[in-house]
Amino acid sequence: MREVAVVGCGMTRFGRSERSLVDLLVEASLKAISDAGACERDFDAVYVGNMCSGEFNMVTGVAAALADRVGLIPSAADRVENGPASGGSAVKAGFLAVASGLYDMVLVAGGEKMTSTPTGRVADVIATLTHPEREYKYGATLPSFGGLLMRMYMERYGVKRESISLVAVKNHKNGALNPYAHFQKEVTLEEVLRSPVIADPLRLYDTCPISDGAAAVVLCPANAAKEFTDTPVLVKGVGQATDVQSVAEREDPTVLNALRVAAGKAYAMAGVTPRDVDVAELHDAFTILEIVESEDAGLFEKGKGAKAVEEGETWIGGRIPVNPSGGLKARGHPLGATGVAQIVELTWQLRGEAGRRQVDGAETGLAVNFGGFGNSIVVHVLQRR
Amino acid sequence: MREVAVVGCGMTRFGRSERSLVDLLVEASLKAISDAGACERDFDAVYVGNMCSGEFNMVTGVAAALADRVGLIPSAADRVENGPASGGSAVKAGFLAVASGLYDMVLVAGGEKMTSTPTGRVADVIATLTHPEREYKYGATLPSFGGLLMRMYMERYGVKRESISLVAVKNHKNGALNPYAHFQKEVTLEEVLRSPVIADPLRLYDTCPISDGAAAVVLCPANAAKEFTDTPVLVKGVGQATDVQSVAEREDPTVLNALRVAAGKAYAMAGVTPRDVDVAELHDAFTILEIVESEDAGLFEKGKGAKAVEEGETWIGGRIPVNPSGGLKARGHPLGATGVAQIVELTWQLRGEAGRRQVDGAETGLAVNFGGFGNSIVVHVLQRR
Repeated sequence: MREVAVVGCGMTRFGRSERSLVDLLVEASLKAISDAGACERDFDAVYVGNMCSGEFNMVTGVAAALADRVGLIPSAADRVENGPASGGSAVKAGFLAVASGLYDMVLVAGGEKMTSTPTGRVADVIATLTHPEREYKYGATLPSFGGLLMRMYMERYGVKRESISLVAVKNHKNGALNPYAHFQKEVTLEEVLRSPVIADPLRLYDTCPISDGAAAVVLCPANAAKEFTDTPVLVKGVGQATDVQSVAEREDPTVLNALRVAAGKAYAMAGVTPRDVDVAELHDAFTILEIVESEDAGLFEKGKGAKAVEEGETWIGGRIPVNPSGGLKARGHPLGATGVAQIVELTWQLRGEAGRRQVDGAETGLAVNFGGFGNSIVVHVLQRR
Repeated sequence: MREVAVVGCGMTRFGRSERSLVDLLVEASLKAISDAGACERDFDAVYVGNMCSGEFNMVTGVAAALADRVGLIPSAADRVENGPASGGSAVKAGFLAVASGLYDMVLVAGGEKMTSTPTGRVADVIATLTHPEREYKYGATLPSFGGLLMRMYMERYGVKRESISLVAVKNHKNGALNPYAHFQKEVTLEEVLRSPVIADPLRLYDTCPISDGAAAVVLCPANAAKEFTDTPVLVKGVGQATDVQSVAEREDPTVLNALRVAAGKAYAMAGVTPRDVDVAELHDAFTILEIVESEDAGLFEKGKGAKAVEEGETWIGGRIPVNPSGGLKARGHPLGATGVAQIVELTWQLRGEAGRRQVDGAETGLAVNFGGFGNSIVVHVLQRR
């Protein structure tokens, strides 16, 4: 298997946009291609991470449309969908295309257009990720599972809701340093605790916003990376796994088994352990998810993730900064864009180009992209060459 | 790059079904796994080719749901979408996963549930594949482009509509021999010519039906294929390419440039020429498409494809039988299923297991899966070992 490098990155600002999904994908893609200095190169393939172009925006075949708009014809083009982990899965598809030896120049773009849609059915469409007969038909939504998980976790591990909501304070603080973030504004713990209840005990500021946006990376074989950049970042480990779809049927719903398997595979492939991780982008669609993921990815013992936030370990300047970008909570969560944006942020961090939110000396980065309600998870480990 | 083998095949009967999309995918998958004798094996990944699970059926995350239902957890799981070529793209994704060396056991399933949908918006959703501003907003649909292409082709190459509609007669004759086909019934040329106009000169019997169905294959490295079967079939060549989305902007709309590029890549990778092809599954969503594809895939000279049908060259028993399965015309076209069903049919043909529709001595097979209105095409070349 060939080693694969990220040699170009780009993204739109996340937030509310008047532009179309494909317009957003075009902007991120052109920035990534330009960042790689690859404007005059032929690309072999385009992969687009997107969950709901048809359901939200009444457009399909967006990967081929992007190849046309960016001038990459006759490049191959596919869309990859894995729910909110579509971006991570698209990066993995691009990785495999290069690692296999079939393709040398691959563009991976992730995007979603959610704030205004002709169908107006955003929340309901996302809820179709739940089990059709055992969950969806009873009105279950992803935030409702977030609330149940938070309550169960608090009881099981004796953790206060304030400790979990500190994730929002931290991630808004980081987002305020990120010019691409949807929310570039700090919030206090009191504001989080006073915000409206979404799914008790989950409150509005415990949840990510609905955002528009796109992110993109250019991938090539590691041995060609120097043609494009002095600071290639390698995709060293890739792991992906599934779990039982119906949350109630899981042995312990506070444990993300799919993450444990996926992270184990990614670490093994990269030849690292969780102790080697210098910076992590986790999928904090809800504050509780960052805590649980930080544990099941092996960064902290089970039940100790909230304590790590309280003690500053996951803040910038701490032992393992988590979501220096602001995460889904503050950078925003245009579904298909998120997994690609995580790779963009880690690349900037490993290159030392993350500006005021830079994690000093970061050499190894971890990305966790969470699909369904944790039943399909994609993990990447990146390293500075 | 590792060589990749197809070691198991399965499909549902195509047609009208009362079952859900995931149920159809499960049936095809279990048949493929059983055909490979792999019921006790761990699978590394599941790829699902599907265009519109959310738009048609209000379910998303179907790949992870399939992994759960078939008992393949914690296998990785992704959906691949490339319009009506989603199945071909899913096969290619599975191919790359094995070829790269990352995975050893991969299930690829393609499926679509179209005959009854909660949204009832099948034709309009498929039309969203057209260019949003230059085509869709003016009411363009894929059949309308099929009609325009047929008229333009007839004028440019001096071909009569009767010669083109012979494709329907041939493919219904083949479908009558295929127990998995939606239509297992012959039609006469007179019946085709008398059928209602859909988009002049395209008539009802010139177009594929709306169908439900699923198909699946099991892929593994070629050097492990003997563990599963005495008759492995190798995926020798893979090619995929895009073209300008807006049909009116193409230099010559009667030429499928994406197919020319994709087929060229697939043949080169396989080390074969069009002359080596013994059997082909082409994407005859409209009769004219089989003709044009047979030319742009290099099987016949440009403008001579209809003559080849008239002279019997593409019938079973002819020089290059095309669509012995009945094709999209008679087997049916559950969008995401088609590209996988083509690989299943070719595998059966190359194994000599195609029953009454067997192409004698077939050693090399070609599959063409057509996305958008020809702006994203996937080609595979398969060979008997």
